[in-house]
Amino acid sequence: VLVSTSAPRAGILVTGTEVLTGVITDRNGPWLSERLRDLGVDAAVIEIVGDRPEDLAGALEHMRADGMTLIVTSGGLGPTADDLTAEIVARFCGREMFVDEALSERIDAIVRPLMARWPDVDAEAVRVANIKQATVPRGATVLEPVGTAPGLVVPPADGATGPTVVVLPGPPGELRPMWDVAVATEPFRSAIAGAPIYRTALMRLFGMPESEIAESLRAAEAGGLALDDLEITTCLRRGEIEIGTRFEPDAQPDYDRLVAYLAERHGALLFSPDGSTVDEQVATLLSDRTIAVAESCTAGLLAARLTDRPGSSAYFLGGGVVYSNAAKTDLAGVDPALIERVGAVSTEVAEALASGIARRFGASLGVGITGIAGPDGGTPDKPVGTVCISVWRHDRLTGDAGTFETRRMRLPGNRTDVRERSVTIAMHMLRETLTGDGSG
Amino acid sequence: VLVSTSAPRAGILVTGTEVLTGVITDRNGPWLSERLRDLGVDAAVIEIVGDRPEDLAGALEHMRADGMTLIVTSGGLGPTADDLTAEIVARFCGREMFVDEALSERIDAIVRPLMARWPDVDAEAVRVANIKQATVPRGATVLEPVGTAPGLVVPPADGATGPTVVVLPGPPGELRPMWDVAVATEPFRSAIAGAPIYRTALMRLFGMPESEIAESLRAAEAGGLALDDLEITTCLRRGEIEIGTRFEPDAQPDYDRLVAYLAERHGALLFSPDGSTVDEQVATLLSDRTIAVAESCTAGLLAARLTDRPGSSAYFLGGGVVYSNAAKTDLAGVDPALIERVGAVSTEVAEALASGIARRFGASLGVGITGIAGPDGGTPDKPVGTVCISVWRHDRLTGDAGTFETRRMRLPGNRTDVRERSVTIAMHMLRETLTGDGSG
Repeated sequence: VLVSTSAPRAGILVTGTEVLTGVITDRNGPWLSERLRDLGVDAAVIEIVGDRPEDLAGALEHMRADGMTLIVTSGGLGPTADDLTAEIVARFCGREMFVDEALSERIDAIVRPLMARWPDVDAEAVRVANIKQATVPRGATVLEPVGTAPGLVVPPADGATGPTVVVLPGPPGELRPMWDVAVATEPFRSAIAGAPIYRTALMRLFGMPESEIAESLRAAEAGGLALDDLEITTCLRRGEIEIGTRFEPDAQPDYDRLVAYLAERHGALLFSPDGSTVDEQVATLLSDRTIAVAESCTAGLLAARLTDRPGSSAYFLGGGVVYSNAAKTDLAGVDPALIERVGAVSTEVAEALASGIARRFGASLGVGITGIAGPDGGTPDKPVGTVCISVWRHDRLTGDAGTFETRRMRLPGNRTDVRERSVTIAMHMLRETLTGDGSG
Repeated sequence: VLVSTSAPRAGILVTGTEVLTGVITDRNGPWLSERLRDLGVDAAVIEIVGDRPEDLAGALEHMRADGMTLIVTSGGLGPTADDLTAEIVARFCGREMFVDEALSERIDAIVRPLMARWPDVDAEAVRVANIKQATVPRGATVLEPVGTAPGLVVPPADGATGPTVVVLPGPPGELRPMWDVAVATEPFRSAIAGAPIYRTALMRLFGMPESEIAESLRAAEAGGLALDDLEITTCLRRGEIEIGTRFEPDAQPDYDRLVAYLAERHGALLFSPDGSTVDEQVATLLSDRTIAVAESCTAGLLAARLTDRPGSSAYFLGGGVVYSNAAKTDLAGVDPALIERVGAVSTEVAEALASGIARRFGASLGVGITGIAGPDGGTPDKPVGTVCISVWRHDRLTGDAGTFETRRMRLPGNRTDVRERSVTIAMHMLRETLTGDGSG
């Protein structure tokens, strides 16, 4: 694992009591962190504070003390008196505030047509608000407003050292378009001078515990692979393991060897050596086929996931949410005697759902899911979490009889966990069927 | 607005490089902030740091310097060597680490059955991992594992002052159940001693812009209502306006008057004066009825939402995901000539879907949704975002012909926004039908 010590470091400071108290979910911190990473700059911290000026100033001081060369703030640029970010940053950078008259006029030109929609608004209050937003630190670079608030790039006072502060508005729709403009300014480039150029890459695995990956990386190193120049992060998400790696261009051969090693060691479990998602892969693989689904315990979640992508109507024909036994028979043609004999949660019924729904819609693939999501409905034989999934496909050899891939499993977690995990497993079973098969 | 100055303050410290780099979205920081608020403790900061030990230690020191009496951490309790939170917190609190043998055995008892699913896993590596997770600061209170990681409540060393640190695991499914246990411990209670006792209450409105609420609050004050002792936060979430209020018990009459005022002013738009969700209300209202749904653009999302709650099989009979026109006819009995004449996205087809799917399943209520989620498929007459929703119900007066409530609307946003908003509107239409009707 590579730790960069001399590289520039950045801090992200998100302001706003609504964000701090959980009323609004912060989307700026992670987004800014990713953008900085693209530039080769590690965010060392994301800090969220409320609208108290002393908390904002304190956070800036901590970041300076920790040696940040760049600080990016979001929020607190509105027209009201408690929007204090610009003023506090000016003081932090040792710069005085002044009214930028030309900027005030540009803000006025933006605000005037908006105001026409609310004839009762007090014109004097609007003028005061515009002047407030046009009051900026002397020597700062102004980033033109996307909404009504200008952004700022504020370098340390002349002759002083310390971080450059990029001040951006809170609404993501205003912050994001300003980012590239901020990055292009001279003080921003200076603040991140010396940042290495990184490449980033992602792999995904399915069907093994996360601890196995740590073991594989140890084995790779023991086997002579050079991993020192690869910065590897593993993470379990929606039942899949994601391996993210960042490296300088020189280390590309090391990374390629790691991918080859993991592909050899884990075979098909490394379903995505290139970072593509199972959803993308299934969508591509379905391009010349058609699919229908019959869902009991997942109740539409697989259909919703398969249609999440634009253009899915080309291959997704329809689905049945077959919660009751009558619905299983009515929509997917499952024989009531079969349900009577083996129970609704069984591999046999999953198969009957898969083939039945495919036939009903004339699809070349069908998926059937039946299970007990809980918390009630479990039995000693079929405890909560028991789920049966079957993928049926029309087959070149067996024709309309088709072939099945069917699994029965017991999934951990609560009702939501069982439902979501079932859908993910169904997506992977679909992927395997579509890659491994000889269907026509 | 009430500002508490002498009250204890807390810091929230979220750890994990995946969270810092934006790979995972942090859900713990805002959740913990809300829980602290319920206890009368303001979180002064949420800080997100990576897995670098010095960043974690530095953040703790900053929080101590800023006078926090309580620090809550999430993450870094896993079995691998870079999970260092417990050790760093021990050092911060001036406590040594030791292996809690009894805890190690309890973790072993949790892990052993899980390991049985992966027969190839190295038993020695598992043993080492269990001991790592059972190594805790001496004098800390152990919070029993929900997954495999125990949580901790770590007071300052004997005789020392400083914050008490609550150490929780990163996965929200493990962190949340541990919270109440942590709150009940003696060191936690001591750390927040002096916090005011607040009551919190929530109201929900649907079908009006958020700015209307600010106006209503101004009008309430102008009309003589006392709001000074109510700390009111409004927020637009999933298309609904949430009004959260925090107050000391003495202000209960003020709050009751506010609720009455808003109920009078906004009528049925204040669908939830008690904070209950539309999902809860619909589930209760459906108790003696049955429902089936036919979904085109939402493709199973409404069925999934209606079955999200345990026990929903009592009223939810089934659904059809009717993406193609053939599916609309086949599953919900929509006349192909009708689709030909008015188009698949039309109030007429929404009604035919609603009544057709109800008849098919013998349900007393049916919902039909058809629309253009985009990004493609829009026309000048029916642009992207056009959605038609109909709720059909069996009616005491009209019998099997039933009655409809049908709406055509144009929703803003991207594909996901349109799909999710459609489902929320359908839930509210269902609620209105179920409260306002005379169906049998």
